[in-house]
Amino acid sequence: MDKRYRFAIICFSILAVSLTVGIVLGKYALCSDDKQDESAPTVQDPQKGGDTGDNLDVMMEDIDPQNIEKILRNLSLVPHLAGEQRNQQLGDYVHSYWTDIGLDEVKSVKFDVLLSYPSATHPNQVFILDKNDHVLAESPLVEKVLTSEENSTDVVAPFLAYSKDGTVQGNVVYVYYGRVEDYDKLDQLGISVNGCIVIARYGKIYRGDKVMIAEEHGAIGVILYSDPQDYHPHFYKGVYPKTWWLPPTGAQRGTVYEGIEDPLTPGYPATEFAYRIPVEEADPALPGIPAHVVGSGFAEKIFREMGGTVAPSDWQGELNVTYMMGPGFKTQMSVRLNVTTRNERRQITDVIGVVRGEVEPDRYILIGNHRDAWVFGAMDPSSGTAIMMEMSRALMHRIKTSNWRPKRTIIFCSWDAEEYALIGSTEFVQKYVKNLLNRAVAYLNVDIAVEGNYTLDVMGTPILYQTAVEATKRVRVPDKDTPLYDEWRDRREMVDLNNNSLGIPSFSTPGSGSDYANFLQLAGVPIMDFRYLYNKKKYKIGSYPLYHSEYETFYAVKHFVDPEFKYHRAIGQVWLAAAYTLSETSLLPFNVSFYAWTLQNLQTQLDIDYSNILQKHLPDYSKNLTTAIHQFSQSAADFMTRQLHANQSDPLSVRRINDQLLQLERAFLDPNGIPGRSYFRHVLFAPSSVNSYAGSSFPGLTDLLFEIDKSADPAKQWERVKQHFSVILFTIQSAASTLRDPAHFM
Amino acid sequence: MDKRYRFAIICFSILAVSLTVGIVLGKYALCSDDKQDESAPTVQDPQKGGDTGDNLDVMMEDIDPQNIEKILRNLSLVPHLAGEQRNQQLGDYVHSYWTDIGLDEVKSVKFDVLLSYPSATHPNQVFILDKNDHVLAESPLVEKVLTSEENSTDVVAPFLAYSKDGTVQGNVVYVYYGRVEDYDKLDQLGISVNGCIVIARYGKIYRGDKVMIAEEHGAIGVILYSDPQDYHPHFYKGVYPKTWWLPPTGAQRGTVYEGIEDPLTPGYPATEFAYRIPVEEADPALPGIPAHVVGSGFAEKIFREMGGTVAPSDWQGELNVTYMMGPGFKTQMSVRLNVTTRNERRQITDVIGVVRGEVEPDRYILIGNHRDAWVFGAMDPSSGTAIMMEMSRALMHRIKTSNWRPKRTIIFCSWDAEEYALIGSTEFVQKYVKNLLNRAVAYLNVDIAVEGNYTLDVMGTPILYQTAVEATKRVRVPDKDTPLYDEWRDRREMVDLNNNSLGIPSFSTPGSGSDYANFLQLAGVPIMDFRYLYNKKKYKIGSYPLYHSEYETFYAVKHFVDPEFKYHRAIGQVWLAAAYTLSETSLLPFNVSFYAWTLQNLQTQLDIDYSNILQKHLPDYSKNLTTAIHQFSQSAADFMTRQLHANQSDPLSVRRINDQLLQLERAFLDPNGIPGRSYFRHVLFAPSSVNSYAGSSFPGLTDLLFEIDKSADPAKQWERVKQHFSVILFTIQSAASTLRDPAHFM
Repeated sequence: MDKRYRFAIICFSILAVSLTVGIVLGKYALCSDDKQDESAPTVQDPQKGGDTGDNLDVMMEDIDPQNIEKILRNLSLVPHLAGEQRNQQLGDYVHSYWTDIGLDEVKSVKFDVLLSYPSATHPNQVFILDKNDHVLAESPLVEKVLTSEENSTDVVAPFLAYSKDGTVQGNVVYVYYGRVEDYDKLDQLGISVNGCIVIARYGKIYRGDKVMIAEEHGAIGVILYSDPQDYHPHFYKGVYPKTWWLPPTGAQRGTVYEGIEDPLTPGYPATEFAYRIPVEEADPALPGIPAHVVGSGFAEKIFREMGGTVAPSDWQGELNVTYMMGPGFKTQMSVRLNVTTRNERRQITDVIGVVRGEVEPDRYILIGNHRDAWVFGAMDPSSGTAIMMEMSRALMHRIKTSNWRPKRTIIFCSWDAEEYALIGSTEFVQKYVKNLLNRAVAYLNVDIAVEGNYTLDVMGTPILYQTAVEATKRVRVPDKDTPLYDEWRDRREMVDLNNNSLGIPSFSTPGSGSDYANFLQLAGVPIMDFRYLYNKKKYKIGSYPLYHSEYETFYAVKHFVDPEFKYHRAIGQVWLAAAYTLSETSLLPFNVSFYAWTLQNLQTQLDIDYSNILQKHLPDYSKNLTTAIHQFSQSAADFMTRQLHANQSDPLSVRRINDQLLQLERAFLDPNGIPGRSYFRHVLFAPSSVNSYAGSSFPGLTDLLFEIDKSADPAKQWERVKQHFSVILFTIQSAASTLRDPAHFM
Repeated sequence: MDKRYRFAIICFSILAVSLTVGIVLGKYALCSDDKQDESAPTVQDPQKGGDTGDNLDVMMEDIDPQNIEKILRNLSLVPHLAGEQRNQQLGDYVHSYWTDIGLDEVKSVKFDVLLSYPSATHPNQVFILDKNDHVLAESPLVEKVLTSEENSTDVVAPFLAYSKDGTVQGNVVYVYYGRVEDYDKLDQLGISVNGCIVIARYGKIYRGDKVMIAEEHGAIGVILYSDPQDYHPHFYKGVYPKTWWLPPTGAQRGTVYEGIEDPLTPGYPATEFAYRIPVEEADPALPGIPAHVVGSGFAEKIFREMGGTVAPSDWQGELNVTYMMGPGFKTQMSVRLNVTTRNERRQITDVIGVVRGEVEPDRYILIGNHRDAWVFGAMDPSSGTAIMMEMSRALMHRIKTSNWRPKRTIIFCSWDAEEYALIGSTEFVQKYVKNLLNRAVAYLNVDIAVEGNYTLDVMGTPILYQTAVEATKRVRVPDKDTPLYDEWRDRREMVDLNNNSLGIPSFSTPGSGSDYANFLQLAGVPIMDFRYLYNKKKYKIGSYPLYHSEYETFYAVKHFVDPEFKYHRAIGQVWLAAAYTLSETSLLPFNVSFYAWTLQNLQTQLDIDYSNILQKHLPDYSKNLTTAIHQFSQSAADFMTRQLHANQSDPLSVRRINDQLLQLERAFLDPNGIPGRSYFRHVLFAPSSVNSYAGSSFPGLTDLLFEIDKSADPAKQWERVKQHFSVILFTIQSAASTLRDPAHFM
């Protein structure tokens, strides 16, 4: 990029960001006061109990860490994989629990979907063979039992769900994390993976993308493993069961599918009347090559034999070998990958519990967490399930012992088959999308609730930022007298595009890492996701080490993560506080200026990444985008004035303002979806197409621009860019019109 | 079909229809009372003026036939074709009119769209040539001026918009009305149109379908004409300017495009930032062969020369010849068709006037009519425009002279470029679809307001039937003391599938004949369309005879159609009464049971048409559809109970019920659209794919089933049927869930 131009962009970026942060902060102060007025006691109707402002404090106090511990113990006693009996039993347990504590309606919503299981009789395995195909070494079939806790006959052997089955044999190439840039590096070094099996470390990107990218590069199979550098760095001594570090026998299960729904019923719920497409027509396609996962112990055996080129120093891991990239071995050897995993249709069950709202029963605050786990799931996801159940108890206890009940309807959701492809939540959204589009205020997700005790982490859509701020100000850091907000701000501060701290906590944009994805993408519901994190600056690791292994046990939680369940409780409190704010505040606590600010940031980021080529092909892109964003900002400012001066004693005025707030997120959906990935409809946020864990901004545009020079027909691709860019402009203008005075929307 | 099976279906049909008509009628009686209670004077807030129940009567009385006449005279003085200066001037006139009478907001919303015009210098023409290509006869370039009224330089020569340009020459085949069944007949007689120019009569189906079907059968060109049998039957003496019958020099202009939007900006509004696709990528495609229209005078010259097979007796028209089918001529001759019509991008202008609602400004009643005309447009559409303007004046007069104003927002819409492809209204809907999806209560259309004085005709979606009933009970038949409802019921009675009268007026389902189409198809807005008809039983004609000719003048209206403009006034009254009912009734006057009844009728019709083949390929189709419809009926019944017992003193309860009513029509949209025609999204109603004028029920299904045995790959086609059938079942179930108690929607 021209340096002067870059400088101009950066200057503009600083200007825009500073200005708008000022506006946002100003508005916060303002709205915070406003908010306190609103939640102050104004008991207008004694029959309805009124909101004394204490209900939340009482309920938060009532959330009992010991209850969470007991429930978690129960949930994580034995494995509860989606589609298996135990997970159904846990569904019944949740159903009974909610019925017993008196929720107004509890339903088990069942779907018939395509899941994937390894063969019980012919397990998946990786073999190292000599030149005569004699087996020199074979991967262990199961993870070693290290404490009595893992001693269960129901543990599923390590596998990668939806892998293609079959046997492949050949040379091996080490591809580091298996990202696009890693293959670029291999290209530069003249190493091709074509016809080879690749071995890739876990970490950095979603495992399904590793398989997809390998397949696109002509690999015939994929072996994934967890390098100690990412899951047990050498300066930490000891592994599970002495520490939380992953032992060499541990293997991370997981799905390698790119889709986020039942593959057989795209776009529609997998109900009794659903039409099921042939599996080979699934879009995105299921993986076309076999993939399997091994522990670092067995991975080391492969690396020890590998030949070819020495891997670059930054590709060297912490196995006790010099990492070679291959292709192939020092001597004439090969690797065979034998995958027998099969796709099977199974029944899954979402359990849904409803607490009817007193004033606006047709406005929903949804609270969700998945129930299915790869094995014991004591962190992923049962930590969240235990909290959700205890939180629902505290809520119902308050309802039963006071004359209060929530103004809006609260819906608790225990999802099934999240691990496979967010299936339970997606099928539910698909089934009830018309109700959710019109009624859902927000979806608040917790998946893994606690993976450390360092700081809260919040992900969400911009409009809920203020809700997160308000909720975290109501909660205290465990054992401290400081608000959770302060710790969050101090330990996860938001930085601008020039890495300057903004003095406010960070709020990452959503990918498709958990059940919130289709609430946002299909129903345009504002979403938020909470988690208590370990220190990511200190531990530069792929994820918490025991993730998706059989060692992710109650024992691990109790000994290494949150012995007193205080951080579990804190997550319960902030989750409840957010739901309470959204349920009880007459005027919804949505801040549209934060959306305006986000749009300006997206524009700045786009300029930084692509202005040089965009300038060339779409000379007006910057001017037009600025116009559209300006229209939005103008409408947002007008709207906020009306929001501030709304007549709060007139329920229809309040409802009118709230309806506009509710529809804003929906306004950013394009019903045609983004180019090439029509199942993502939000034009501002979607998972990155090369890393589903990460959020991508203007995702349709960045998909099209990604390596555009290498595309088969760049001229045609640029037409697609222009077309989609006009959709983005229209969508922003359209969102602006929804914020205007309803009698002056044109 | 097996006769016993047919008998069973008919019995079931009678049972279902009788039962449900009973329910509907019962409900009517019940709701009618209810309604009168609602509109009875209950002045709760003198500041707001209250609804004294007299406002409507005052306004209806105020609608002045002489005003309508004056405005119509003005509107129809000179031609006002879309994209031409005069229509822009009329837009300014409407804009000023609404500004002057004090509407709260008036906007001119402009779009840049693809229109089509004949060449001024090289006109379209049809030639009859001898074997040496010497011209024996050529079609007149213009329609003859018959009164001083047509004497304008701005009359566009007869043409068919969006026809392909070019010259074709060859044999002629007479294809009767050019319907699919007419080609089947030709097939039976061994006559192929391949490589020939076809000559087809106007009538029965949409002219664009005539061209499309001809093209699909291999024709190289199309000549359309108006046969006297359809436009001037022999037992009526005299033609225009002595009568309303079409003279031999008259020619019906019109579009032959199948799409209903700007062809260059599919799915999005044609605004400044819009991306425009190459015209050859338009979907549906623009006509691929030249087409032109001639008067019956010139058509007779062609027929006089034609040879080949004598046409069947029912194909014989009323030209003074024996109709031969061709191909070709008695002697060696040919016809040349020379079309120079070109597509051009032009600016069009919708004029939108808003009357802000007092209580619910964010709920819209839209009232619309198009402004553009092929020539003088004194009937199509200026009769409607004149009424709309006078109606708006009466409304504003009442607002200014009383302390009343409408509870909900009323939006008047003067559309441009309807004649081309419903372009003005569609682009508007596309631009503001997000606002309309959430806020529009109904769209009330009038196109040609008065084409006779025999009876009212109403078209609409089932949920508005009750509104039509209520509105017509408030209006009197001109010069009589009977309610318009009675005349409508007596002269347009609804008959069941066995042709038994049901004692209630008929209410046809919407196709895409006018600007309501995309309110329904894209935004799911309930729609209604009013017109005063001539006696269709007496006059078995293609349309009112002067339709789209230059003879459709003010003179014709004044002399032959409605000399005192009393029927214009009646249309204004019923249009206003419907809008008033929708605007003023606290609980929206929507009757969901009529939707349940309609679903049962659709099922019965499907059984009659296709049960024999559906039974074979989808054995459970009937059982599953019955289940889904039963679920809907059950939800509808539950809903009506809640509707009846709603606490009308609680505005949020009322709004909640109304929101469910509002969302019902939307719930019948499938965002993916129907198979092959994704721009139609309503799964129950769309234009027939072989006649855009007519509504089709379960249109996706009937499209797929139409001549399925002749499809290229019937097995694959049956898979599509199964897939779409499951979408229908899901959509009905989904609509049912939106009607349930919001805390119990699962």
